[in-house]
Amino acid sequence: MLETFANLYPHRDYLIEIVCPEFTSVCPKTGQPDFGTLTFQYIPDLLCVELKSLKLYLQQFRNEGIFYENVTNRILDDLAVLLQPRWIKLTASFTPRGGITTSVIVEWKKTS
Amino acid sequence: MLETFANLYPHRDYLIEIVCPEFTSVCPKTGQPDFGTLTFQYIPDLLCVELKSLKLYLQQFRNEGIFYENVTNRILDDLAVLLQPRWIKLTASFTPRGGITTSVIVEWKKTS
Amino acid sequence: MLETFANLYPHRDYLIEIVCPEFTSVCPKTGQPDFGTLTFQYIPDLLCVELKSLKLYLQQFRNEGIFYENVTNRILDDLAVLLQPRWIKLTASFTPRGGITTSVIVEWKKTS
Amino acid sequence: MLETFANLYPHRDYLIEIVCPEFTSVCPKTGQPDFGTLTFQYIPDLLCVELKSLKLYLQQFRNEGIFYENVTNRILDDLAVLLQPRWIKLTASFTPRGGITTSVIVEWKKTS
Amino acid sequence: MLETFANLYPHRDYLIEIVCPEFTSVCPKTGQPDFGTLTFQYIPDLLCVELKSLKLYLQQFRNEGIFYENVTNRILDDLAVLLQPRWIKLTASFTPRGGITTSVIVEWKKTS
Amino acid sequence: MLETFANLYPHRDYLIEIVCPEFTSVCPKTGQPDFGTLTFQYIPDLLCVELKSLKLYLQQFRNEGIFYENVTNRILDDLAVLLQPRWIKLTASFTPRGGITTSVIVEWKKTS
Amino acid sequence: MLETFANLYPHRDYLIEIVCPEFTSVCPKTGQPDFGTLTFQYIPDLLCVELKSLKLYLQQFRNEGIFYENVTNRILDDLAVLLQPRWIKLTASFTPRGGITTSVIVEWKKTS
Amino acid sequence: MLETFANLYPHRDYLIEIVCPEFTSVCPKTGQPDFGTLTFQYIPDLLCVELKSLKLYLQQFRNEGIFYENVTNRILDDLAVLLQPRWIKLTASFTPRGGITTSVIVEWKKTS
Amino acid sequence: MLETFANLYPHRDYLIEIVCPEFTSVCPKTGQPDFGTLTFQYIPDLLCVELKSLKLYLQQFRNEGIFYENVTNRILDDLAVLLQPRWIKLTASFTPRGGITTSVIVEWKKTS
Amino acid sequence: MLETFANLYPHRDYLIEIVCPEFTSVCPKTGQPDFGTLTFQYIPDLLCVELKSLKLYLQQFRNEGIFYENVTNRILDDLAVLLQPRWIKLTASFTPRGGITTSVIVEWKKTS
Repeated sequence: MLETFANLYPHRDYLIEIVCPEFTSVCPKTGQPDFGTLTFQYIPDLLCVELKSLKLYLQQFRNEGIFYENVTNRILDDLAVLLQPRWIKLTASFTPRGGITTSVIVEWKKTS
Repeated sequence: MLETFANLYPHRDYLIEIVCPEFTSVCPKTGQPDFGTLTFQYIPDLLCVELKSLKLYLQQFRNEGIFYENVTNRILDDLAVLLQPRWIKLTASFTPRGGITTSVIVEWKKTS
Repeated sequence: MLETFANLYPHRDYLIEIVCPEFTSVCPKTGQPDFGTLTFQYIPDLLCVELKSLKLYLQQFRNEGIFYENVTNRILDDLAVLLQPRWIKLTASFTPRGGITTSVIVEWKKTS
Repeated sequence: MLETFANLYPHRDYLIEIVCPEFTSVCPKTGQPDFGTLTFQYIPDLLCVELKSLKLYLQQFRNEGIFYENVTNRILDDLAVLLQPRWIKLTASFTPRGGITTSVIVEWKKTS
Repeated sequence: MLETFANLYPHRDYLIEIVCPEFTSVCPKTGQPDFGTLTFQYIPDLLCVELKSLKLYLQQFRNEGIFYENVTNRILDDLAVLLQPRWIKLTASFTPRGGITTSVIVEWKKTS
Repeated sequence: MLETFANLYPHRDYLIEIVCPEFTSVCPKTGQPDFGTLTFQYIPDLLCVELKSLKLYLQQFRNEGIFYENVTNRILDDLAVLLQPRWIKLTASFTPRGGITTSVIVEWKKTS
Repeated sequence: MLETFANLYPHRDYLIEIVCPEFTSVCPKTGQPDFGTLTFQYIPDLLCVELKSLKLYLQQFRNEGIFYENVTNRILDDLAVLLQPRWIKLTASFTPRGGITTSVIVEWKKTS
Repeated sequence: MLETFANLYPHRDYLIEIVCPEFTSVCPKTGQPDFGTLTFQYIPDLLCVELKSLKLYLQQFRNEGIFYENVTNRILDDLAVLLQPRWIKLTASFTPRGGITTSVIVEWKKTS
Repeated sequence: MLETFANLYPHRDYLIEIVCPEFTSVCPKTGQPDFGTLTFQYIPDLLCVELKSLKLYLQQFRNEGIFYENVTNRILDDLAVLLQPRWIKLTASFTPRGGITTSVIVEWKKTS
Repeated sequence: MLETFANLYPHRDYLIEIVCPEFTSVCPKTGQPDFGTLTFQYIPDLLCVELKSLKLYLQQFRNEGIFYENVTNRILDDLAVLLQPRWIKLTASFTPRGGITTSVIVEWKKTS
């Protein structure tokens, strides 16, 4: 479902930062909805992610039961596999549940 | 009482940060309740801590008499023994008592 | 358990404001601890509440299962019955549960 | 699905304020998810709304297509019919869509 | 181009607030683009404005040369004629031009 | 030098607010430049002031020696005579001189 | 110990405001030191309080055991008796003790 | 030493506000320098105060021993006598001395 | 369309920073307008960009369909080719679309 | 026109910072006035700049047509030539023109 478009400027390293404050999925233990902000930072290689498809891709988690740690890693992996960027980092900050607030921070680097 | 689930992404180092502003225990000297915020930061190895069980585990201290320094170290140890993380740090910041505010900061690192 | 001392200045109306950010009780539905800040404002008549006894009185709710709305009204009533103040108001602001934050605001006035 | 419990203090007017920053429904025009914060303020008569049931009730809109104006009025009506409160107000503030931010503010008063 | 949908709750007065920070038109004197934030507040009667059509309607001014004062009044009139609301107010705040910042504030009320 | 354009909406009272933070004139006592922010608020009758001509009009004071109190009143009078607005107010806030900061606030109302 | 000097301007009502953030006394129950900020506001009649003597007067409470409510009223009374001002108000805000923060606000008006 | 110039606009009431953050005099008890901010607000009648002369007039207090209350009233009186304004108010806020901060607020109105 | 003027001070490295909060182009996928803030930072070599021509150049994108990533790189390239600066960086921060906010940060350095 | 006085402390490096928020010159393209804040930072060697002469020197640009980049460099050069400081930096931040804000930052260092 994620779409890409060609990076027309692969001869240079540059940074793309995408902030998604409307991420929501479901807790696999309680069945209750979770809410969080995803912040992506990446240096593209040959491909960029198309933003509308990213929005639709993230909406797929709306009714899926998945742990914070797993959803953060899985989204990072999906983007890393698809884009093969030079570097990508995902910071996921979730809202409080039972008085507890959690963030997960994951990074991926292309091996040359 | 603490539960874990398998870290599905052990091939990478990533950071999990958990903030618990509703920690409460009892002062062993005065029998009065203490209140504080616990901030965990860890890099998992094979296991992650399940958050609901962490909440219930922390509630066990609700009526226990224990010094700030001891409770901070004991919680760190419990998590270190259970998770065997690559690295874990616990920052405990307690509310003022008699005009005095105290924090305890503890760290643990897996020896390879 | 609540103690009082004589208001030595009953010939004048004056305001006493007491803020208790460390209130905790238990949710009667889930058995989970609740946390909140209680703010009292009152004009004493013949009696003032002694603060240390107020602290101990509030600690009695530490392990009691009771709804936000009920605990706020009950504490107000206990103080109103005991102190018979000219006026008293209690604002209780609780921390988020399941993404929902609740406050209860109750007032009592002596009928002359 | 909404549950109530008896207001044990109907002899006095008092205010209950409930803030729900994690409301989400679906736009009936585009099929895209909407996000908003609902703030309830009410003076109960004989009944109070139970908070966990309110949370579950609001989750029912998660996959429902409905306009901002309608969902705000409908939720207000559901609570007004159920609780028959002395007064209730609902302020719904939604996140930007197409560069446009919308709020809807609705009020209901018991006719005596 | 502006679309409406039926107000399903005409038996009550309620407030709809819409903020559009991405308004742009063209200065009729210099041909240069102008930028501003439009804030609508209205009490609907039988009709509500559909937000996507409002967005598209406002985009029609993107390449039109028109004074601040006129565009503010014209947009208010278009909405007033279309919606026949019980009351509507438009606050238009434009960005600095030649070191000068301008706002225009217009109101319309249905005569019964 | 001040230009006007016809108010196309004289059938309604509405407010125009214009902020000019780059006003400068010369102190008649010391020959030193003065700097200030002029804020105009007016309800137009048949005419509106054209903003570019207002900018050029205000620039005429750039090398003129005149007291704060006089320049504020004179500008208000020039606009009142030209526009014959229903109401106009001018707030002039000047920057510190010799450690002293001065503002002058003047108002004019059409007599019917 | 409190000294006064003649109010040279008794023909007019004017306001004197004095803020003392370094007040300290002793809790009569626990023997522990208390800390607070006293804010005086008064309209003098024939006398003003001399500030150095006020400072020394307030220092007398340093080792005195006295309740918040009593010390606030007593200081107000001492000043009211001494100065016979047209009006005086004292706001005393104390630092947290056992997680509880208290303020006392007292007012006195000359009866003519 | 205070100079005036004719108010060219006596046919209208308007407000002049002057802030002097660099006032300094000497404490008559201790011989120590005092520092404060004087804020004047007045509606002129036939005369305005010239600002440079006001600055020089205020500098006369630099080495004079005088109480806060007296200096504030005296400056107000000097300006009231000189300008005979329709209304004038002086707010004097002094810096902390011995941990105590003082303000004096005085007003004068022309009797018609 | 971009104009330059000679850098009269090429013997020294210095920094020019230009902030353009009124950039707008069109989304090539949806045809909807995009809005963003462009921040340029550069060290000139022999040429500086003339600001009015930069404003007109940026206005050319007003009705052009182009991705965030491409427009940011293209503008950087146009300036780099034209000015041949010693170093230039462009930070483009766009407003939210579908709940997602994006920034693109691009840098170019003259190779000696 | 710029005057100097001897630095009596040349045996030590120390920093002088001068902020001039009232700089104004004229745009050479449009003839319109420009406004900006100049911030000087320098380490003197044998001479310091006299501040009143600096003020008068900067006023010479009041009616001169000159680009931002050139005026910033020229003022820096004038001061560098005159003072021969160990180091000097000038940051010039101009107000928005056509929606665009510009700063120029220039540095000069004595070569030993």
